Amino acid sequence: MAKKYVYFFGGGKADGNESMKELLGGKGANLAEMAGHKDLKLPVPPGFTITTEVCTYYYANKKTYPKELAGQVKTAMTQIEKLMGRKFGDPKNPLLVSVRSGARKSMPGMMETVLNVGLTEKTIPGLIAQSGGNERFVYDAYRRLIMMYSDVVMEKAAGIEPEDDQGIRRQLEKIMDKMKEEKGYKADTDLTANDLKELCKLFKQRIKEVLKKEFPDDHEQQLWGGIGAVFASWNGKRAISYRRIENIPDEWGTAVNVQTMVFGNMGNDSSTGVAFTRNPGNGENAFYGEYLVNAQGEDVVAGIRTPAPLNKYSKSEHNKHLPSLEESEPKLYKQLVDIRNRLEKHYRDMQDIEFTIEKGKLYMLQCRVGKRNGLAAVTMAVDMVKEKLITKEEAVMRVTPAQLDELLHPILDPKEEAKVKPIAKGLPAGPGGACGKIVFSANDAVEWAKRGEKVILVREETNPEDVEGMRAAKAILTARGGMTSHAALVARGWGKCCIVGCSALHINYSNKTMKVGDKIYKEGDVVTLNGTKGYVYEGSIPMMDATENKVLGEFLKMCDSIRKLGVRTNADTPADAKRAKNFGAEGIGLFRTEHMFYGEGSDKPLFCLRKMIVSKTVEERQKALDELFPYAKKDIKATLEEMDNLPVVIRLLDPPLHEFVPSSETKLKELAKELNISYEELQKRADSLHESNPMMGHRGVRLGVTYPEVTKMQIRAILEAAAELVKENKKPYPEIMIPVVSSEKELENQKVIFDEVLKETLKKFNLKKLRVMFGTMIEIPRACFYADKIAKTAEFFSYGTNDLTQMTFGFSRDDIGGFLGDYLEKKILPEDPFQSIDQNGVGELIKIGIQRGRSARPNLEVGICGEHGGEARSVEFCHLVGMDYVSCSPFRVPIARLAAAQIVVKTTKSAASKKTVKKVSKKK
Amino acid sequence: MAKKYVYFFGGGKADGNESMKELLGGKGANLAEMAGHKDLKLPVPPGFTITTEVCTYYYANKKTYPKELAGQVKTAMTQIEKLMGRKFGDPKNPLLVSVRSGARKSMPGMMETVLNVGLTEKTIPGLIAQSGGNERFVYDAYRRLIMMYSDVVMEKAAGIEPEDDQGIRRQLEKIMDKMKEEKGYKADTDLTANDLKELCKLFKQRIKEVLKKEFPDDHEQQLWGGIGAVFASWNGKRAISYRRIENIPDEWGTAVNVQTMVFGNMGNDSSTGVAFTRNPGNGENAFYGEYLVNAQGEDVVAGIRTPAPLNKYSKSEHNKHLPSLEESEPKLYKQLVDIRNRLEKHYRDMQDIEFTIEKGKLYMLQCRVGKRNGLAAVTMAVDMVKEKLITKEEAVMRVTPAQLDELLHPILDPKEEAKVKPIAKGLPAGPGGACGKIVFSANDAVEWAKRGEKVILVREETNPEDVEGMRAAKAILTARGGMTSHAALVARGWGKCCIVGCSALHINYSNKTMKVGDKIYKEGDVVTLNGTKGYVYEGSIPMMDATENKVLGEFLKMCDSIRKLGVRTNADTPADAKRAKNFGAEGIGLFRTEHMFYGEGSDKPLFCLRKMIVSKTVEERQKALDELFPYAKKDIKATLEEMDNLPVVIRLLDPPLHEFVPSSETKLKELAKELNISYEELQKRADSLHESNPMMGHRGVRLGVTYPEVTKMQIRAILEAAAELVKENKKPYPEIMIPVVSSEKELENQKVIFDEVLKETLKKFNLKKLRVMFGTMIEIPRACFYADKIAKTAEFFSYGTNDLTQMTFGFSRDDIGGFLGDYLEKKILPEDPFQSIDQNGVGELIKIGIQRGRSARPNLEVGICGEHGGEARSVEFCHLVGMDYVSCSPFRVPIARLAAAQIVVKTTKSAASKKTVKKVSKKK
Repeated sequence: MAKKYVYFFGGGKADGNESMKELLGGKGANLAEMAGHKDLKLPVPPGFTITTEVCTYYYANKKTYPKELAGQVKTAMTQIEKLMGRKFGDPKNPLLVSVRSGARKSMPGMMETVLNVGLTEKTIPGLIAQSGGNERFVYDAYRRLIMMYSDVVMEKAAGIEPEDDQGIRRQLEKIMDKMKEEKGYKADTDLTANDLKELCKLFKQRIKEVLKKEFPDDHEQQLWGGIGAVFASWNGKRAISYRRIENIPDEWGTAVNVQTMVFGNMGNDSSTGVAFTRNPGNGENAFYGEYLVNAQGEDVVAGIRTPAPLNKYSKSEHNKHLPSLEESEPKLYKQLVDIRNRLEKHYRDMQDIEFTIEKGKLYMLQCRVGKRNGLAAVTMAVDMVKEKLITKEEAVMRVTPAQLDELLHPILDPKEEAKVKPIAKGLPAGPGGACGKIVFSANDAVEWAKRGEKVILVREETNPEDVEGMRAAKAILTARGGMTSHAALVARGWGKCCIVGCSALHINYSNKTMKVGDKIYKEGDVVTLNGTKGYVYEGSIPMMDATENKVLGEFLKMCDSIRKLGVRTNADTPADAKRAKNFGAEGIGLFRTEHMFYGEGSDKPLFCLRKMIVSKTVEERQKALDELFPYAKKDIKATLEEMDNLPVVIRLLDPPLHEFVPSSETKLKELAKELNISYEELQKRADSLHESNPMMGHRGVRLGVTYPEVTKMQIRAILEAAAELVKENKKPYPEIMIPVVSSEKELENQKVIFDEVLKETLKKFNLKKLRVMFGTMIEIPRACFYADKIAKTAEFFSYGTNDLTQMTFGFSRDDIGGFLGDYLEKKILPEDPFQSIDQNGVGELIKIGIQRGRSARPNLEVGICGEHGGEARSVEFCHLVGMDYVSCSPFRVPIARLAAAQIVVKTTKSAASKKTVKKVSKKK
Repeated sequence: MAKKYVYFFGGGKADGNESMKELLGGKGANLAEMAGHKDLKLPVPPGFTITTEVCTYYYANKKTYPKELAGQVKTAMTQIEKLMGRKFGDPKNPLLVSVRSGARKSMPGMMETVLNVGLTEKTIPGLIAQSGGNERFVYDAYRRLIMMYSDVVMEKAAGIEPEDDQGIRRQLEKIMDKMKEEKGYKADTDLTANDLKELCKLFKQRIKEVLKKEFPDDHEQQLWGGIGAVFASWNGKRAISYRRIENIPDEWGTAVNVQTMVFGNMGNDSSTGVAFTRNPGNGENAFYGEYLVNAQGEDVVAGIRTPAPLNKYSKSEHNKHLPSLEESEPKLYKQLVDIRNRLEKHYRDMQDIEFTIEKGKLYMLQCRVGKRNGLAAVTMAVDMVKEKLITKEEAVMRVTPAQLDELLHPILDPKEEAKVKPIAKGLPAGPGGACGKIVFSANDAVEWAKRGEKVILVREETNPEDVEGMRAAKAILTARGGMTSHAALVARGWGKCCIVGCSALHINYSNKTMKVGDKIYKEGDVVTLNGTKGYVYEGSIPMMDATENKVLGEFLKMCDSIRKLGVRTNADTPADAKRAKNFGAEGIGLFRTEHMFYGEGSDKPLFCLRKMIVSKTVEERQKALDELFPYAKKDIKATLEEMDNLPVVIRLLDPPLHEFVPSSETKLKELAKELNISYEELQKRADSLHESNPMMGHRGVRLGVTYPEVTKMQIRAILEAAAELVKENKKPYPEIMIPVVSSEKELENQKVIFDEVLKETLKKFNLKKLRVMFGTMIEIPRACFYADKIAKTAEFFSYGTNDLTQMTFGFSRDDIGGFLGDYLEKKILPEDPFQSIDQNGVGELIKIGIQRGRSARPNLEVGICGEHGGEARSVEFCHLVGMDYVSCSPFRVPIARLAAAQIVVKTTKSAASKKTVKKVSKKK
């Protein structure tokens, strides 16, 4: 039997169905399903789909078709003619068709369409008769065909590339504009039948002049021209670059859908509309849509006339004066509601549909899963489970992490945002939107915020001394730094809008201005940031507030019932800890002791720390540590108390000491006085701490080894805080984490101190034991190779994937700005490895570490506390490699809960589908 | 049968032999061999060895002995008595014995010895009779026994730990000193027999007072006390800490050697001496030694009398006035020469021997493989092969890399060095010694050197701008930086003496002084450096010049005939390349293009480079590159020509651009003028290149990706240089190396440029092909995981283990000084990983990379060009993991040749010994 290249649909039957998207494309498969499935059999205008295999053949065989194609097309066309009682090319009762693309995955606007195919000088009279004598309608259709065909088929598909503004379509438009101008018309609809007749003549002349070819006034030629144009458009420039961006393989190819034309513009008993089976804006279970009387699809898109509401539910301020379809055509509306109900039941998801009413008869032109925003996605998922339409597992897969993220931050109103152009683009470091007056120093941010201003802090880059200003600002904007720069880390931790590495900004601190292109913005000027996209806008753009949502809680509980991975948070204060608990965090995965030296109330401890840092002798250092101790203990105790009975991983001092040395002369002098040394001596000591590559310098456990007294003070603070809480009948559960470990000996060295202090603390507080773990951060490549040896001492591992990524790539996250842009653009990296775990590089080290670690200690607790812990694909990876938990900033906790559930569903499904495949092949 | 714990030797027989070092210790095994082997049967005073197993038993069983021991000791003692015709404890004809330790590996001075055991009030008359009435000799022996025994057995072994200066030995010495003072004696030898009698009485009284015990005047008690003291001293503090340093396992234990006393101090017919079977100072095949008449071993050590030369060959300025043994006792000397010849033939190596002549009778007390310096080691190895005493493989194993290194650099005269104390210690970054006047700037170094001064350049740390001064200086001394800091790298490349990270120096550039402790050294003051040890001395110390050595060439040819690994060099100039070829380099493993921007003649190219760096547009950059091109081509061509027909791996620009930006205002202004931009603008551009962690910043291939024109210029320079040489009938063989690669896409990106330029060059020069390879440096951990993908494009890998070590450990080599000292001291790291490859961490990555790389390209060429390529253990590692070659600085090439040969011998030997073990077990 000859290979089947053409799939017919219509009249309650279809050769294909929804599962054949690879062969028929999304559009074709859904048309077949609607037309042919026994539960649907919807009124779809009959037509046929030429498969994607023809497209592949076309490109593999010098743009020719399989020899069987012409015959199969003819057969299908005859089937249509029979159903419609019209004939393609028949002067008396002609059949017109549309020719549309349809790839496996939707590529909106990227490929070509030709409508009204089959309309020729010969068939015009027949169509006039069909339309009840509507000559204007017919010539309007003809002029549309000529414009579209000459552009799409005769010019683009022929590979002609005219100069800008010299394309044939633009030339024809100019002719039409000229006529309108001469006649004093405003709208296209003012053109009369005669005008249009004249236009068609002028169009054909111009086409011949420019393209040196006649417009083909033959129905067969038009059909094959249209088919060829669709296939050709698969390799058009736009389509190719879209596929690059969306990672759609070139070899997929497109199908071609040839379908009977129906007209929503045949008079007032005709109309066309789009609808969603539920509200895509908020998820409510209500039919939602709009339609235009006497119009075609492109008129709806053009937005010249305001569409009318489909029903009462769809009424808004803009359209409430217009009659709804429910009111004006109750019967047709009822038919549509019935279709809507059947579609939802059948597809078990919200559908986006297109329909046309031609002279009182309803046709379904398209149906596909409807796009929705975050709120709607969550609401529908929860509702559909309640309605028993879908399972919990399906519900969890219905919401993307990005949609969930929308619910957690206020955002720019997308409609308003679409109207303006960004003045600059940077990296999207903190999600959501923000609008405010720009200031250029942390102090100004604090000052202005105090007097009630909404401010956006603009800096070259931020450092710990800016933290108060960052907190006071609505958003942070920096000219330098990458996704894990200081600004990005801090902002993400707070769920604050932030854009970093926005290199178009030229900041002048002394004038308090920033220059973007040629324009200068002064302190107090208003800008708006879209932190989700990294866009900066001039002036103010309205915001949408993503309100607290009860349904969100229900949805996340569903996720929790499925996921296996624990979810903790990175939090440094009781307030953060509390917020994270509300978001569902089951513990703290990273509490950084150094946070106590930043922000409010940090003056005194920071001063003690600085004294410690510039100490020359053990005695000086011990004295400073003794002063620091009560602050450290108090700080740790407060968070342990807030997280009572939940684990709290406390990381000992990690950054290079140099970071804490004051940069201002005043502060240095104050410090010199306190230490009783000269300013010069102090400067010398401070300078000696300077490092060429501090990220790989004297930090983390290396400090603990060289200054054991620093480790001792911190461990004592943790254990005494815990002991005091036990005495207060609390259940503290600290896990002490040693950072930057590269060899087991470092950890053994620190463990000796831990054992000693634990013994002393138990004695001091007269306790038998304390619930506490001793473990390490795995963030140095070598630690992964030594994981078995390290796990002999470490009771837990927590992967610090920020640093692990830095070392594995040799990428300094502070300096990646110099080349990351080029790397992403040139596709050298598929994405920023500081955003999503590099699974085959960094990931391989992670796997080696877990496998070796558990070989030495089977019950080793393994988690992740890098920024990746809140990124969906990374969370999935963590599940797959067998981690016990992920930890992320409070605002990311819900994302992690979702991603952890989704990977369970995915892996179960893929296991199940493998089974199915087996069964099927057995049956054969 | 009962277990054998006691091994007898003497009278031409022995229970043990040399192969039993583990059981009998080194000393015991050699005594047995000398006494019992059929080819030797030397006159060894009879005795027995108590095995190391008894030591193990002793510590495992609360310091008790196996029950069989006493009986076996008694039997052995009877054997001795029979041979000697004397009886232990016999008042008339007593036998005296020594009790000495003897571990598997020599631990000189770490354990205890008791001599003259068996001398009691009862046996004194018998010994007087034996000595021919020499009462003084006997009482002197008795007082020595009392002093030694009370100290070693009664105090130390009993675990008594008196305050400093309060030990029993010191107390007895004070008694003796007091007597000498009262009697007006100067030397111990002035004490008369009666004095000594009196002293012994006083000693015993004091012992009783202090230790509350009588001195045991019983021969059996003395023997077992001595044995116990030796075992106890295995766990003495000194011995334990020595074992820690030398990595000797605690469980080895020591043997105890009990041996008949012979006396070199029984009169003028008695003497004692030490000798080497060949000259340990230069390797000449001549018997070399010295001896003292009427003396005991400890008198030789004490150095009070000048020993006499053994023979004419051993005469020197110091001893030529004394009669040699050859002259005064020709018969005994002949006997000794005969023994020397038999020992060399038997042991097939130079031996260090001890002998005693008691009343005209020769006794051999010890023989062991003699220590030797580098020159001697090489000379003996080569000679012994010629003498057919040893094989080439054995010869290669006779020289350590450190000994070879000695031959390559002038060194401090060790005798002179021993007399003074260093004023400071740093890291031994460049080997050999140097002496000169200190200067504090590169310019001063150049100036002073021009006027003929030998100078030592002292800097906080060095940078590329100091290179001329470093070249002019005899040696370099820095206060900061690690083993791979700029100073260390440069110095090692030149084979120049260098000490870095000498933190005791406080340098004041403005005063041109350095302070060490409380002392201030001014410009022009003389210091001497031992770069092999890292010691700094005040003033001048005489040097020994390691002269060019013909034997060295012969020795290294032997190595070459054995090794499998290729040896290349890291060289940046034709001069370096030539020198390395003389050292035996078979190609260049690392030619750094950036070297052309340092040192002599670099002004113009550096200026072009700087223009390129601060360019803002592609056009500006291209213009600067065009200017740079002829310099680059010329530079590369010269080295390719020097290395004609040998491979030259040329690395494209590697360092972060910021390194090349001038720091001086003058130079910046000059540059601004040339670029036609303002000074402020230039400063801004320069500042924007600043990075937080430049080592992980915008460098290597990342520059090549963002600025493809930079790659293009360099590749064109290489290929055109090669093409020009081909036209001149030369055989250039460049290998183009892309640095800092972390993903295959980076390399593919650069390969496109290579292919394009290659095509253009072939066309321009009308050539069919060029011999050239395209490959990459593997120095980023991720590259090892992606090695299979990378090897699809790369034709060769060269491991950059400096950077690979940095990333794998997260150690910045410039900043390691802050903690490396502590890490080594606290044994957290066994050694500096930048010196010797970290085999289980970094090494594992290397193995993964090679295995994956070869899986994709079986004939992939793999080498190493990090500093490790010249370190012996790392070279062995490179052989074991299957690399094709190592590359190192010119002065390290001989070391690499040796190490590469040694690992072949080692692995063949261990394979052979496994076979032997199999055979033996089969025989059983």
